[in-house]
Amino acid sequence: MPDLKEIADWIGGTLLGDATLEIHGVQALQRAGPDEIAYVARGREDVDPSGLRAGALLVASDSDLPYANRILVADPQLAFARLLDRFHPRHPFWTGIAANAHVCPGAQLEENVRLGPFSFIGENSRIGAGTEIHSGVAVYRDVTIGRDCLIYANVVIRENVVIGDRVIIHPGAVIGADGFGFGRTTEGAAVKIPQVGRVIIGDGCEIGANTCIDRSTIEETVLEPNVKLDNLVQVGHNVRIGRDSAISAQTGISGSTRVGAGVIMGGQVGVADHVEIADGVMIAAKSGVSGSIKSRAVVAGIPHQEIGEWRKNMVLARHLSAWKEKLRALEKRIRELEEK
Amino acid sequence: MPDLKEIADWIGGTLLGDATLEIHGVQALQRAGPDEIAYVARGREDVDPSGLRAGALLVASDSDLPYANRILVADPQLAFARLLDRFHPRHPFWTGIAANAHVCPGAQLEENVRLGPFSFIGENSRIGAGTEIHSGVAVYRDVTIGRDCLIYANVVIRENVVIGDRVIIHPGAVIGADGFGFGRTTEGAAVKIPQVGRVIIGDGCEIGANTCIDRSTIEETVLEPNVKLDNLVQVGHNVRIGRDSAISAQTGISGSTRVGAGVIMGGQVGVADHVEIADGVMIAAKSGVSGSIKSRAVVAGIPHQEIGEWRKNMVLARHLSAWKEKLRALEKRIRELEEK
Amino acid sequence: MPDLKEIADWIGGTLLGDATLEIHGVQALQRAGPDEIAYVARGREDVDPSGLRAGALLVASDSDLPYANRILVADPQLAFARLLDRFHPRHPFWTGIAANAHVCPGAQLEENVRLGPFSFIGENSRIGAGTEIHSGVAVYRDVTIGRDCLIYANVVIRENVVIGDRVIIHPGAVIGADGFGFGRTTEGAAVKIPQVGRVIIGDGCEIGANTCIDRSTIEETVLEPNVKLDNLVQVGHNVRIGRDSAISAQTGISGSTRVGAGVIMGGQVGVADHVEIADGVMIAAKSGVSGSIKSRAVVAGIPHQEIGEWRKNMVLARHLSAWKEKLRALEKRIRELEEK
Repeated sequence: MPDLKEIADWIGGTLLGDATLEIHGVQALQRAGPDEIAYVARGREDVDPSGLRAGALLVASDSDLPYANRILVADPQLAFARLLDRFHPRHPFWTGIAANAHVCPGAQLEENVRLGPFSFIGENSRIGAGTEIHSGVAVYRDVTIGRDCLIYANVVIRENVVIGDRVIIHPGAVIGADGFGFGRTTEGAAVKIPQVGRVIIGDGCEIGANTCIDRSTIEETVLEPNVKLDNLVQVGHNVRIGRDSAISAQTGISGSTRVGAGVIMGGQVGVADHVEIADGVMIAAKSGVSGSIKSRAVVAGIPHQEIGEWRKNMVLARHLSAWKEKLRALEKRIRELEEK
Repeated sequence: MPDLKEIADWIGGTLLGDATLEIHGVQALQRAGPDEIAYVARGREDVDPSGLRAGALLVASDSDLPYANRILVADPQLAFARLLDRFHPRHPFWTGIAANAHVCPGAQLEENVRLGPFSFIGENSRIGAGTEIHSGVAVYRDVTIGRDCLIYANVVIRENVVIGDRVIIHPGAVIGADGFGFGRTTEGAAVKIPQVGRVIIGDGCEIGANTCIDRSTIEETVLEPNVKLDNLVQVGHNVRIGRDSAISAQTGISGSTRVGAGVIMGGQVGVADHVEIADGVMIAAKSGVSGSIKSRAVVAGIPHQEIGEWRKNMVLARHLSAWKEKLRALEKRIRELEEK
Repeated sequence: MPDLKEIADWIGGTLLGDATLEIHGVQALQRAGPDEIAYVARGREDVDPSGLRAGALLVASDSDLPYANRILVADPQLAFARLLDRFHPRHPFWTGIAANAHVCPGAQLEENVRLGPFSFIGENSRIGAGTEIHSGVAVYRDVTIGRDCLIYANVVIRENVVIGDRVIIHPGAVIGADGFGFGRTTEGAAVKIPQVGRVIIGDGCEIGANTCIDRSTIEETVLEPNVKLDNLVQVGHNVRIGRDSAISAQTGISGSTRVGAGVIMGGQVGVADHVEIADGVMIAAKSGVSGSIKSRAVVAGIPHQEIGEWRKNMVLARHLSAWKEKLRALEKRIRELEEK
């Protein structure tokens, strides 16, 4: 087990306290015991240290939280993330290529690809070095997957999809299914429009469990690098999402919408089709974005408004019955004045 | 085919009518024919019996519904459920361990485990006696599954998940995927926080198709016994849901929220992170719960309100244009008074 | 490569311009180059042709859009769809029956069925001629699937489901999982009601990725012919959806609801249980339909209203704080009148 000095060295922090204390694990702040290390998030330094039992704490460099053993770091959460990796290394799902996987002729697997049982790699698909594909995954033909990706069980990746390096795709996600595109006959019957466009997933993206990203008729659906999607998200055809954006569970982005960089969406948000969301916009959970948001703003509501406006209106809307009483009372006073 | 006497004996009911009538099947009330049995739900005793053709009815003990052949029982719906099991026994998916399943070294399968083709059981995972696992299921390493569970096709269960006895998991559900946890660099790039906490599913829980239950950074995500989740539900990391709660389709519970026992949620509800919902709370479909609900209540709306308040406000909100007219008229009358 | 004359012949259009121009591909209007063909959708004829580089355009017969090479057709979008099929023919996933698929005794596969690796076909299930089933699909026992269907990877179809001809089911969809049906003991514990009803999917339906269609206790859940469901849709038990209806992503239809023919729903709509939606109704995204809609209408809101009413109320609701000011001012003027 590492001692505190080793841990401080790993994460490049400044140790105050007992350098020889052995640390057996990482733990949440309120649950950590005397042989465990926890962290105090930036802005949470008002915690009462007397109630804590952790052997040591990671704290921000500029924090003056008093605690016997502490390591000062620039960002305690990110330092803690590195300790999590050290104390809980991920076990690879598989070593080498499973005998009961199915690799079609013409597929190319670079060195150190790990391919689990019951996974299928289609013709002419290429899997980059160090990428790990778990069980039951379907990679259709002509797919490109980059290096050091992590594709969990039962993911489906349709033909012609392009995936960058270090992408993580959680179980059951579906990349490149047909967009929801139909024409109508003069009698009103829906006629399928073929969807042959590509889906392109940038480096460092993460795609949640059972999330769906559709291909479009002929143009590209794009996630720029480092986009993070939670579970059960729907990304419609021909959508583009800018880098570093993060979208919470059960949100849906309709077709041909452009989402800027660094956009944050809460859960169960809906965004209409063919709109543009500027860089850095934040959208509260359950909002319905019905039109473009042209500049950085925080919005909420159905349809969306600037969040301050929304809050004011919401508070008022919750007291409409009081208003009704007031209106009645005013009417009575006017009638009395008129009768005079 | 059983006669009515046998059926009454199976379910412990009191038979009134022709004990020798042979019953060939169970059926919905309005569709049942002369050789079928149906039930009249509690509170639905105002049905017109002259329009029914069922050979016999299950009715509540205290019901005076007149019908030639009827069986009095405490709860007609639950008695009907037992007849459904009798007349439509479930066929096991598989017998024994399929030759084309993949069981890793160190996995332990107790007696009478049924394991379908193309399923994967990881190292050191344990499957309890009588549990049935269908095709295409991925059970990662170090998973514990209890006895008499039913795991449908293409379910994914990540490492270290603990599942109790008699749990049903419907197709495509994902248990233990990484929670949506990120730090940010000073430049604003999202940095993944490893998610190594466990997910614990209590005895008798049922988890809907394509539902997702996430693991957290280091603490537990917990479903207490007998929780029922519908399809496409999202349970965030470090959530705890109390026993006997039932959550309808497409609802999402954000991270670190505590849901009490016996809570009922309609579909498409969203619950914010880090809130507490008291035992027995009922939440109407499509509500947005933005803060804690400290005592038993029925709520609706975005953000949620007590349902009576919500209804009053909703009715008023639907007549805002009438109000506007009224306000204008009052203003005119005031102006006239002022001009006098 | 075909020339314009051949293309006009394929789609039965009238060619104006250079019949010998070779066309190398189809492309979106703004991206098409001199050897590509694009289309101008009906109602979009106000596009500026001078900004386009396409070698040729498909335009509506009655359009007078000036362009050197154009083909007049009744519906440019549908004609374009046919060209997409010509230029981007779909590669079949597999040829014949994969050696590493699993077909149970008693299953019947008609001629030209294509069955991919790691798919499972249960006892007594029948697969119609020309149907293509990709990898990792689970077809339980006693299922009937019609002709020329396309079942993508990792779809799950439970026992007794009936699927018509030319049905497309996208990856991860789950057909026939148990409906969310529970009774309650007198102590309040949920008791599962077995769900043994069938799901029936009509000819020409299309079912999106990770969408779920539940079976009911004993009656049928039905999609009439040519219903189109987007991704992550929830169709509850005992629902019936009329022909040619189209339902966008993340919408949920609760149990026993009847949806008419030609109904259009936006994304994230919720429809209550046991309601009826008339033919031709249109429901805006994110609406909550709490009761029946008895005649053709366009609705929006939670709960839903006729969309014109909803818009008026929405606009007013967004200006409640201005109203509050106005009400205060009126009150002041009344007080002044009273004091006189």
